Amino acid sequence: MNKIDITVGVDIGGTNTAIGFVDRDGKCHLEDAITTNGKEEAVKFFSRLHEKIDNMYTELSEGFLLKGIGIGAPNANYLKGTIEYPPNLNWGYINVVEIMREYYTIPLAITNDANAAAIGEMKFGAAKGMKDFIVITLGTGLGSGIVVNGELVYGADGFAGEIGHTIYDPCGRECGCGRKGCLETYASASGIRRTVLELLKNSKEESELRNISIDQITSKKIFVAAVKGDKIALEAFEYTGKVLGTKLADSVAYTSPEAIILFGGLARAGDLIFKPVKYYMEQNLLDIFKNKVKIIPSGLPEGNSAVLGASALIWNELDKLFAA
Amino acid sequence: MNKIDITVGVDIGGTNTAIGFVDRDGKCHLEDAITTNGKEEAVKFFSRLHEKIDNMYTELSEGFLLKGIGIGAPNANYLKGTIEYPPNLNWGYINVVEIMREYYTIPLAITNDANAAAIGEMKFGAAKGMKDFIVITLGTGLGSGIVVNGELVYGADGFAGEIGHTIYDPCGRECGCGRKGCLETYASASGIRRTVLELLKNSKEESELRNISIDQITSKKIFVAAVKGDKIALEAFEYTGKVLGTKLADSVAYTSPEAIILFGGLARAGDLIFKPVKYYMEQNLLDIFKNKVKIIPSGLPEGNSAVLGASALIWNELDKLFAA
Repeated sequence: MNKIDITVGVDIGGTNTAIGFVDRDGKCHLEDAITTNGKEEAVKFFSRLHEKIDNMYTELSEGFLLKGIGIGAPNANYLKGTIEYPPNLNWGYINVVEIMREYYTIPLAITNDANAAAIGEMKFGAAKGMKDFIVITLGTGLGSGIVVNGELVYGADGFAGEIGHTIYDPCGRECGCGRKGCLETYASASGIRRTVLELLKNSKEESELRNISIDQITSKKIFVAAVKGDKIALEAFEYTGKVLGTKLADSVAYTSPEAIILFGGLARAGDLIFKPVKYYMEQNLLDIFKNKVKIIPSGLPEGNSAVLGASALIWNELDKLFAA
Repeated sequence: MNKIDITVGVDIGGTNTAIGFVDRDGKCHLEDAITTNGKEEAVKFFSRLHEKIDNMYTELSEGFLLKGIGIGAPNANYLKGTIEYPPNLNWGYINVVEIMREYYTIPLAITNDANAAAIGEMKFGAAKGMKDFIVITLGTGLGSGIVVNGELVYGADGFAGEIGHTIYDPCGRECGCGRKGCLETYASASGIRRTVLELLKNSKEESELRNISIDQITSKKIFVAAVKGDKIALEAFEYTGKVLGTKLADSVAYTSPEAIILFGGLARAGDLIFKPVKYYMEQNLLDIFKNKVKIIPSGLPEGNSAVLGASALIWNELDKLFAA
């Protein structure tokens, strides 16, 4: 019997690391997770990861042939195979591909979460058949993966695609990066929370969000309030979409994508975020770009999109090897 | 005797069209020009262009073999072969490649001036051997050509690379595009002129520029004054460099280039513009990008850089044909 080619997609998060065995069509045959312990040494983590992958591969039955491993991780560098000083992980600068080479001879690749999401959309999701698009991941921060002519943009150093750290307002909100007014301080889960706090402070409008202690206000609770018609929550979504849409008009001027895909928690708020993003992007576009660029949601299943992205990364590499 | 392969580079400007026969090493063997008459029909213009190219080819001696024609023009679209509603030319929407196909069977390509400049730098100039860089052309406006992984970024519609129309200040100067605060309203020959007018209005500083009628103030005269130590002129260059440097920090976050090349009139002001651009770019860069990105001048000869760029465009196509 012919074995089915399979890859492993690994999504390294701050608290958990998800692992999935994904075939060429994006079907996940087995998924599991290990804890990411930020205080553990990197080599110990990757030893545990290797053990888990091996156990899962045994469990998977004999019908599959492992072809490669793709990893998505914060601060990962595709060109160097490294993870460099990830926030919340005490790993410093490590070469993941070298560490994993102790265990595997098959192709390995690593990139950051947003780039993995972009390749995931291209292989299995909303960007199938597209050659020029941008994926914006709206999580705690704002990540981005830019695809030009069918290839992910890595830049000279592997760190391209930091749209979350383009400047919306040079006198604006303090960012974790040490600068002011970065897009992600507005357009992200933490950004919309800051917007709500600002609105609560500046207005006298009634809002159910006033009854929640400040530390407990989350983007989810803002969404729930907005759905019920809470004016502060609605205004927060409108403002978030305005900031993001305005800056996406700049993004279009750079790479003129066919579509911009919104991915992650905030994007699941649907029209609440998509409508203002579309409106303000169009308002701010140069004439030649108007009514051309689609703003669409992710086409990856919610539960394991990150694992699918990491798997797509290595499928993409395998396709290139095959084409060469 | 083996003939030397040669291409024609054509630079269509608002008043003149330059034509050069350029070999694979970027040497221009013969150069001439025809007038661009904005009121003339496009087909008549291209008929005259064809005649001129043919006459020059005859003049060039028998030692050369014409392999292709590259054209740089305002509002040109590489993907479609068109020029679309160019300012100052009464041509509307025309398909240049189709028109030229009446006369030539050899490979033809067209792109806008800034993209041609970028390919020129890659083939013959300051970006030789680079795979990721950006060319900023500082003329009356601000044009840009973005190269990622060795390929020019055209985007889904062929119009990518409009960094001049990213927004510096949403409440800022009116732009010819109908919006406000576009980068090119600050960082360009016309932009620095507007800055000088603003400074003259707001300050009481002595300046030789006060003795020139407003319509006569040019970027050249501002440069001459700055070299002599005129404080208004110096401040105008500083401000221009600040705006450009600040926005280039965003550009780096998009494509993480190895270098940004400043091209065109204003760039010839040397340190007056390069120093503030470098300083403010570094000041505004995300930490991971600091001290990595070179800001360098064009490596193309001043006189015929546009013709070399247009020729480089078609050499690049010929190389791709050869590689395939």
